[in-house]
Amino acid sequence: MATSLPDIEAALDAVLPKAGDRPAALCAAMRWAVEGGGKRIRPQICLASAEAVGGSAFDALMPACAIELLHSYTLVHDDLPAMDNDVERRGKPSVWAKFGEADAILAGDALQALAFETLARTPERRPGAIVKMFAAFGKYAVGVVRGQVEDIASGEKDVPFVYEHKTADLFMCAAVAGALAGGGDDADVERLRLFALHLGLAFQYEDDLLDDDAPCGREAAAERVRIETDAAVAALDGLRGDASFLVSLARRLVDRAR
Amino acid sequence: MATSLPDIEAALDAVLPKAGDRPAALCAAMRWAVEGGGKRIRPQICLASAEAVGGSAFDALMPACAIELLHSYTLVHDDLPAMDNDVERRGKPSVWAKFGEADAILAGDALQALAFETLARTPERRPGAIVKMFAAFGKYAVGVVRGQVEDIASGEKDVPFVYEHKTADLFMCAAVAGALAGGGDDADVERLRLFALHLGLAFQYEDDLLDDDAPCGREAAAERVRIETDAAVAALDGLRGDASFLVSLARRLVDRAR
Repeated sequence: MATSLPDIEAALDAVLPKAGDRPAALCAAMRWAVEGGGKRIRPQICLASAEAVGGSAFDALMPACAIELLHSYTLVHDDLPAMDNDVERRGKPSVWAKFGEADAILAGDALQALAFETLARTPERRPGAIVKMFAAFGKYAVGVVRGQVEDIASGEKDVPFVYEHKTADLFMCAAVAGALAGGGDDADVERLRLFALHLGLAFQYEDDLLDDDAPCGREAAAERVRIETDAAVAALDGLRGDASFLVSLARRLVDRAR
Repeated sequence: MATSLPDIEAALDAVLPKAGDRPAALCAAMRWAVEGGGKRIRPQICLASAEAVGGSAFDALMPACAIELLHSYTLVHDDLPAMDNDVERRGKPSVWAKFGEADAILAGDALQALAFETLARTPERRPGAIVKMFAAFGKYAVGVVRGQVEDIASGEKDVPFVYEHKTADLFMCAAVAGALAGGGDDADVERLRLFALHLGLAFQYEDDLLDDDAPCGREAAAERVRIETDAAVAALDGLRGDASFLVSLARRLVDRAR
């Protein structure tokens, strides 16, 4: 792929508020939430989706940052005392544990807003692509909240609904935005949306396996990882660009679950 | 003005999730936050700004809804126990008091996302207008959080900074988005941004007067309402459309403060 993890980190650093931006507490909490964390899997899907439609990964750098900002805000709010009450995230204090509840709520709010502000800086390769990108971002940003509300609801929860929205929605957002930024047509965008839906489901079932916490049992979860991964790779068929990064991403996932 | 309050209410009803949309708790909390509340002053500024640049208020109906959704989410989060700890809003239980803290945080998050999704449904009257609208929305949506963080910070706060960002930013967002939706050029957009900045400041000083809670004293606050209102009306000079609604909005404000 034409861009690598250091490019993503540098772009995230460039869009986040700087030391000296006011208020200092907000800047610090937003950076704490985003920096030094995670595998940046969603930005990578976004960049690779632009290449898979025959475009340049560089054109998708702003949506790639936007999706990571969006993902980061959901983690900040999920960790809150009223939600999962997690004091640690990725081996360091969670945002609310470090900066207090109020600033954590507000830092999450600002990260979501900054995601949309960042998205508006995407260069347009196909007329109307940016508006479609915004529509998709808005829809999936609502979707991820729908998944979280269902997940924390008391009583019996609809597991497929939670998996689709809580996990796959942001994968789809990344892929659709990347495909649009890369100049993909409607058919290509739909191929990548389907890829990301299945990859997101595979990712979620694999997470259950790694945590030894599969609602459907280990055997069935491992089978679902294989089925969803195959479906993800099959969805890439017909793309004109280089989809090899996406294929290897999907394969790495299924290998990890073995 | 070509659209009235019932049009705004009907449009908000159309963009909010419907009974039957899942999860039901999220739909109910989002509607609780938006329905039956407020004077819809920001949507009215948005629609009137489209007319003030010579466009149609109908073209600005989606940004008008988006700004009200954004404003509503800020109120939902401001009321939370970790923030202002308000159990009542507009004579009924606040969202967290009615639905619990977790669902209130998430309903606020979903309202912000829905604001951006709604914005993407704006018809484009001038090439590039929608992307500019998104950039402005993102910037002011970050700005309103900056104002709130400064407002709740311990120690001495920067009152002008809080007033500009906590209040005027969403007024400017409404005016700029309406001007862009109405097909305004850069000069018109800037006129309306300045109008909204001064109107927002007048609004905030007037609020202090009505609450008998002006940090600068009653006399000085009343003087500021007059100065800012005059500056707001002066900024409208040179617009090609009908700015009479905006003028009367500003005048009503200064009259109320007497």
